[in-house]
Amino acid sequence: MPELPKTLTDALGALLGARFSRSPSDRDLHGRNETHFPPAPPDAVAYPETTEEVAAIVRACAAARVPVIGWGTGTSLEGHALAVEGGVTVDFSRMNRVIEILPEDMIARVQPGLTRTGLNTELRATGLMFPVDPGADASLGGMAATRASGTTAVRYGTMRDNVLGLEVVLADGRVIRTGSMAPKSSAGYDLTGLIVGSEGTLGLITEITLRLHGQPEAVSAGICAFEAMAPAVEAVIATIQSGIQVARIEFVDGATVAAFNAQSGAAMPEQPHLLVEFNGSEAGVAEQAARFGEIVEEFGGGPFQWAQAAEDRSRLWKMRHEAYHSILRQRPGATAWVTDVCVPISRLAEAVEETAAEIAAGPIPGPILGHVGDGNFHAILLVMPDDPAEISAAKRLAASLAERALRLGGTVTGEHGIGIGKLGYMEREHGGGWDVMGEIKRALDPLNLMNPGKMVPTNAG
Amino acid sequence: MPELPKTLTDALGALLGARFSRSPSDRDLHGRNETHFPPAPPDAVAYPETTEEVAAIVRACAAARVPVIGWGTGTSLEGHALAVEGGVTVDFSRMNRVIEILPEDMIARVQPGLTRTGLNTELRATGLMFPVDPGADASLGGMAATRASGTTAVRYGTMRDNVLGLEVVLADGRVIRTGSMAPKSSAGYDLTGLIVGSEGTLGLITEITLRLHGQPEAVSAGICAFEAMAPAVEAVIATIQSGIQVARIEFVDGATVAAFNAQSGAAMPEQPHLLVEFNGSEAGVAEQAARFGEIVEEFGGGPFQWAQAAEDRSRLWKMRHEAYHSILRQRPGATAWVTDVCVPISRLAEAVEETAAEIAAGPIPGPILGHVGDGNFHAILLVMPDDPAEISAAKRLAASLAERALRLGGTVTGEHGIGIGKLGYMEREHGGGWDVMGEIKRALDPLNLMNPGKMVPTNAG
Repeated sequence: MPELPKTLTDALGALLGARFSRSPSDRDLHGRNETHFPPAPPDAVAYPETTEEVAAIVRACAAARVPVIGWGTGTSLEGHALAVEGGVTVDFSRMNRVIEILPEDMIARVQPGLTRTGLNTELRATGLMFPVDPGADASLGGMAATRASGTTAVRYGTMRDNVLGLEVVLADGRVIRTGSMAPKSSAGYDLTGLIVGSEGTLGLITEITLRLHGQPEAVSAGICAFEAMAPAVEAVIATIQSGIQVARIEFVDGATVAAFNAQSGAAMPEQPHLLVEFNGSEAGVAEQAARFGEIVEEFGGGPFQWAQAAEDRSRLWKMRHEAYHSILRQRPGATAWVTDVCVPISRLAEAVEETAAEIAAGPIPGPILGHVGDGNFHAILLVMPDDPAEISAAKRLAASLAERALRLGGTVTGEHGIGIGKLGYMEREHGGGWDVMGEIKRALDPLNLMNPGKMVPTNAG
Repeated sequence: MPELPKTLTDALGALLGARFSRSPSDRDLHGRNETHFPPAPPDAVAYPETTEEVAAIVRACAAARVPVIGWGTGTSLEGHALAVEGGVTVDFSRMNRVIEILPEDMIARVQPGLTRTGLNTELRATGLMFPVDPGADASLGGMAATRASGTTAVRYGTMRDNVLGLEVVLADGRVIRTGSMAPKSSAGYDLTGLIVGSEGTLGLITEITLRLHGQPEAVSAGICAFEAMAPAVEAVIATIQSGIQVARIEFVDGATVAAFNAQSGAAMPEQPHLLVEFNGSEAGVAEQAARFGEIVEEFGGGPFQWAQAAEDRSRLWKMRHEAYHSILRQRPGATAWVTDVCVPISRLAEAVEETAAEIAAGPIPGPILGHVGDGNFHAILLVMPDDPAEISAAKRLAASLAERALRLGGTVTGEHGIGIGKLGYMEREHGGGWDVMGEIKRALDPLNLMNPGKMVPTNAG
């Protein structure tokens, strides 16, 4: 990889002072990822504090034909921010302010480096909340860039639904604003939606206008076991069709329960479970839980235990909250490869059962859990990182899972995004649509400098 | 305007037989619009029955450098389908089938010429519905192309939220599929969202995958008066923040009530009114109506009358349902210019009051009504079509309204789209973002043949 041109390092040093770093530790830190991809450090890291600085960095890099990669908290699971072609990583940690909260409009304008829990802390006194919850305390810029979602998407939507507008620095340094503060608009191409999920390949997000939601007056939560995935999924379908609004509806498989039992000393039945949460009025959440209980019974599940008090809800959801760590602790020394596919709900039981059977036939443990209301599930493959046979097996399982999702009418990623991990499935998922993505990329980033090596056909630059 | 080349008319005649028409009546019919724009007939009209035929039409037109314009039901209010540069209009009325209904996944795949009431008729027995309701019985393809919404958007979202995927014929005749049958995805640029709202300028929609919703078990509806817009809007804000889920929440101004009184002999107070609807369980809709009634009282409105039985609900909403025709009948001979802006809810009272005052100071009556939960409102300007002074006044009012919406952080169109009526505001609303729209258009339609003269800077082609 060539060194950065001196004209560029001089320019960025003059612009940012100590906030432009070529130190090995900074580069290493920004070359790592949360999963199994080999490190790919950038040549330098920039820590801008303003949109103008971001635009100046992008212009300087464009002039020097050097790649630019955005960085939030580094919690991506598909290697989105790896500097696979070198370049300058733009770390947004110093752009982490709430710009404005408009309670009457239920809107917050934030900088991209702010994390979701940071925003919710600021919102606490307003009666409002930002509900999108991918698990990690990710930056809101990163969440927008990857079109993140999580357990609450079934009720509150994904980042696609909760970003009203953006400020974006384009590949040539132009700064545009997309969307408006109005709740909806029919004014032209949906540039907001185009940038959300574009993973830094069309521009860098420097401001986000977010849709907020009212903190619920009351919450109820519950859990129940089923004999198998199929009746559990049928119960979920009946629930959603009946108009009961779940705020979260999660499933775990028997292997996940077994991991929790082993780690916690609990003795829960090692079968598929559903975990639900309802948000609303005191009377409303009680009614919804009761109606859900009836549906569960109809499909042979149960007993359905539920509660409204916060400590009781935590107890009922303990298994789900600890699932990931219970699973990891089952196999000391193993690395978790977290898969992520999403299928039509009607095919979810089939997808999970086929996947579980395939995992059971191989050498790697892989409990399965997911967001059943969205058809989105994850197998947590526990891979010994030094065992090439296991790594090959994990790759085969992941590929087979992606193929299965596509065969069943779904997508190779429900919420983790493409990064470098899913690039190989894009053509199969989108066909000619992938070419169109490349055409858009070429139009907006003709030099292929915005997070190159990701998202689009490699000849797109 | 040049005649169509003979090679093209021969090719399309051979392809479509009698379904390719150059008759004056067909051309005239497809050159009209529902509002005040002068007619602009195409040179010919094609009535395809399959995606392959649509692709063949587009390829033939591209080879001959002839524009292609999509046509649904012709109910656009901004002249979207006017053939301002001539060409071939593709009328989708023969592609109006439901392809597939997947009740468990709450999905319907439909052809673009199907209307929303046509779909809902097919859905009646399933317990599901497609709730997006722009008023007119528009085609679903047209609704997707204009990113339509209507009274239910506050609960069920707009077409942006309810289109899961598309089949699209691009400008060079390629056919792509966007999205999937999974409820969500993070796999690449959101091409579905890019095409929704693109008004036929990037391609022709030949199939739509729609998100369905459960028919509510129960509905409650009500109405109440307020002294002024400001407390009515404050009541709406408090309602939404409290987590009460309104299915519809509409307002009408005193002038609309006056028109209804005059036409129906009613004696309702000629003040701003709110009309609400709640969807849910029997107990849920009763609770929501009761809680809304308390909020109304808190803000000085009322009395709040509400009901659950269908005939009582119709009676309470009669004024809203008849509003448009009551207004039109107030001024025989007048044409309605229906404006359409959308602002942050916190600025809605201000926007409506300023607009009403400006209308009152001029020569044209213009009652105001709208979707208060979305900040979206319409002034129905009653213009004598042969009076140039009135036409100028209406243009000034519409321009002033658009400027006001932008000044207050909103958009020049909440749901009607750009067409030719709002093109002049695009630069002011989007700034550099409008250039980006032009760059996308150039990338996907380099010959500028898909609905030319619309949406993007005129040098985009």
